Amino acid sequence: MKKILVLGAGQSTPYLVSYLLDEAEKHDWFVVVADRDFELANQRIDGHPHGEAIHFDINDAELRSTQIEQASLVVNMMAPTFQPLIAWDCVSNGKSMVSVSYRDKSIRDLEPDAQRKGILLLTEIGLDPGIDHMAAMSLIHELKDRGGVIKSFVSYGSGVPAPDSITNPLKYVITWNPRNVVMSGDAGAQYLIDGQIKIVPWHYLFQHSWSVDVDGLGRMEAYPNRDSLSYKAIFSLEHVETMVRGTLRYPGWSETWLQIVRLGMPNETLRIPDLQNRSFRELVEMFIPRNISGMNLEERVAAYLRISPTGKIMENLAWLGLFSEEPCGAEGETAAEALSHLLKTRLPLEPGKRDMVVLVHELQVEYPEEKARREYITSTFILKGEANGFTAMAKSVGLPAGIAIKLILNGDIPLTGCHLPTHPAVYKPILAELASQGFTFTERRKPTKAKRATL
Amino acid sequence: MKKILVLGAGQSTPYLVSYLLDEAEKHDWFVVVADRDFELANQRIDGHPHGEAIHFDINDAELRSTQIEQASLVVNMMAPTFQPLIAWDCVSNGKSMVSVSYRDKSIRDLEPDAQRKGILLLTEIGLDPGIDHMAAMSLIHELKDRGGVIKSFVSYGSGVPAPDSITNPLKYVITWNPRNVVMSGDAGAQYLIDGQIKIVPWHYLFQHSWSVDVDGLGRMEAYPNRDSLSYKAIFSLEHVETMVRGTLRYPGWSETWLQIVRLGMPNETLRIPDLQNRSFRELVEMFIPRNISGMNLEERVAAYLRISPTGKIMENLAWLGLFSEEPCGAEGETAAEALSHLLKTRLPLEPGKRDMVVLVHELQVEYPEEKARREYITSTFILKGEANGFTAMAKSVGLPAGIAIKLILNGDIPLTGCHLPTHPAVYKPILAELASQGFTFTERRKPTKAKRATL
Repeated sequence: MKKILVLGAGQSTPYLVSYLLDEAEKHDWFVVVADRDFELANQRIDGHPHGEAIHFDINDAELRSTQIEQASLVVNMMAPTFQPLIAWDCVSNGKSMVSVSYRDKSIRDLEPDAQRKGILLLTEIGLDPGIDHMAAMSLIHELKDRGGVIKSFVSYGSGVPAPDSITNPLKYVITWNPRNVVMSGDAGAQYLIDGQIKIVPWHYLFQHSWSVDVDGLGRMEAYPNRDSLSYKAIFSLEHVETMVRGTLRYPGWSETWLQIVRLGMPNETLRIPDLQNRSFRELVEMFIPRNISGMNLEERVAAYLRISPTGKIMENLAWLGLFSEEPCGAEGETAAEALSHLLKTRLPLEPGKRDMVVLVHELQVEYPEEKARREYITSTFILKGEANGFTAMAKSVGLPAGIAIKLILNGDIPLTGCHLPTHPAVYKPILAELASQGFTFTERRKPTKAKRATL
Repeated sequence: MKKILVLGAGQSTPYLVSYLLDEAEKHDWFVVVADRDFELANQRIDGHPHGEAIHFDINDAELRSTQIEQASLVVNMMAPTFQPLIAWDCVSNGKSMVSVSYRDKSIRDLEPDAQRKGILLLTEIGLDPGIDHMAAMSLIHELKDRGGVIKSFVSYGSGVPAPDSITNPLKYVITWNPRNVVMSGDAGAQYLIDGQIKIVPWHYLFQHSWSVDVDGLGRMEAYPNRDSLSYKAIFSLEHVETMVRGTLRYPGWSETWLQIVRLGMPNETLRIPDLQNRSFRELVEMFIPRNISGMNLEERVAAYLRISPTGKIMENLAWLGLFSEEPCGAEGETAAEALSHLLKTRLPLEPGKRDMVVLVHELQVEYPEEKARREYITSTFILKGEANGFTAMAKSVGLPAGIAIKLILNGDIPLTGCHLPTHPAVYKPILAELASQGFTFTERRKPTKAKRATL
């Protein structure tokens, strides 16, 4: 019997665990779900005979190492900060790891060790990063085979409420770790545009938004997502002049979140004493310098940020609860943790409502052997969640990871070392199974003049 | 023979290693200095029979563990980012660690393991943090013993050129890891003022400066340093209403560095292809959005930042070399690494010149049993480096660490677990030996009305 250790039982995991348990008998697997919240882990297993929940503290080095040692394969579904610890232990114990997090420096540094041990560290195998990589890579390989030269590659990813399920003025819903929303963009972002590299620091990132028309959805807004440049090499796009990865939101999110970043509230380092019993009103006050004057906190916030005291942004901040006098009730010690708690509380998926994930690829291709014919391609993937069932986020993050786990355990991925799912040996079988489950992209191709992303 | 493993051979280590080698014969020690730059490590040992230099790659887990296993005690002089790895290996191998870096979360998390293994993880035992903690703690204990209630605690630390050795318009000199200067303030800062907690994000930090008159030096500028609040508990200052730790510079540094932070250049995450061959002009261009217009890059930078195109700040940025067309020559991949390289090149300690370290404590004390008598105390430590010899930075960082190492190896510090040098068992013998080597504070006490720090 092969033992699959799933670390983390958060919002992205229900579908993954359900998939693994469904396949467990056939493949003779046993699935261990480990989380610091035992009850949550237990819910995921739900009494399945091929599964077990355990209490897990990531900082307990001995427990971590023991559990990993006993596993056939480790699945990392925890927050990105814990990836180095987990990957390191996987390498020490010679176990392959599947992760939906980004490949960070700690993973790249483990490449020689992973090779030596003959294991696979497969990261970015969720939705975005994940399905988007695989679909992009598949499309790029097809276009190149047809003699195309890709001049511009712009892609977007998103998890938002379905249009019929918008229940709050921010038009957003928390369907994954809210920490990822709170700290979104904290390292800034860089991209390539018309051959120029542009870098945007965190404190300007949400000001750097632009409009995108999405097939079937209408106008959304986008802001740049992390390091788009790194995908030039990953996707082998030697001739690309524009390379942008962006995150989509319904219009209005960025102008609001920008102000929260400008205040400095997404801070996960500075520890605020007695956080749980402080109100958001008290917390916000901490971020306003003493030389800003105003009749009340709201006025001082607007004055400090130089935004309208009566406009939409202040309305959104107030709606979120930034001026509430109630104890914030957040576990943890930092303003970032308080914000995570707030988002989770204020932006939940309401009963009967559905979330939606969106991926868009926009490519401009030239065919030098066909009189420099140009083609403009959009490829769009939209998946809506089940009302009162699996979210689109959990399905689209969990299914690619689940398929990858199956392939690795069956010996069907002949790779060792650190990999992204951009390798044909990974994306081909996974995309095929995804398609068989209805995960398909809608593609439109038309001849066109160069259309510039409005950055 | 006891083996002392010194990890890192950077600018703060020469005096420490020299101290350890001087004491090595008497105490039967052998000193191993490990650095990725073998030549640098070898310079530190300088052929001493009780020492050895080794090439060391922190990411080589096996080498790291083997070296730590063989040591009697580990001294961490590497960049703060590596502290978790080193501390973790020290605990695994049951070795005590002495570090001049801050105690971070990774250290706090190791407390139970360190206790269980009966080892000591002594951090913050350099200059600031280090000497400042010990002197502050000693003063606080003395004042409390005399019935004093400390209402305000403000302290400053700094390493700058001596007044007779200012050789550049930024009036600064690199005498330690330039990375620490480049990333200074990256987690923001928080402090307590008149009972209110205030938090300042990185992008406003260098705008949040104020003037400080330093005994014997005149007017300096200060900006808030990390988490001042955490020292309320560390120093047992239950009744303090103002608690601020600040960093001192000669006036003008902050207004210049603020703009570099606003541009977003201190970024250690985003990897810029072909960094070494790019000019700073190219790099700066990356941080200016495309919708900013101007005749040339200089004008666009000034327009984007809304600063005078012909003022002192632009002059400083140009002097530093931000508009240079030469290849930057930086090793590494990020804009932060390019900045580190630039600072090292442009702000070196010139031959014959001296650096200077400064510590200042400003306390307001009330004596409730003496008709609420108030006292205002300043305590100032100024140490200048030797021209063409040891820097004040290397001496003041290395000596406390060296003394601590001696005390631990001699069994004179009866502590296990994670500690700062605020424990009397640590600071008393160290301050005594520091004083015997001329490291003394000049104190002034006067009755006074409450004086508010101008934050």
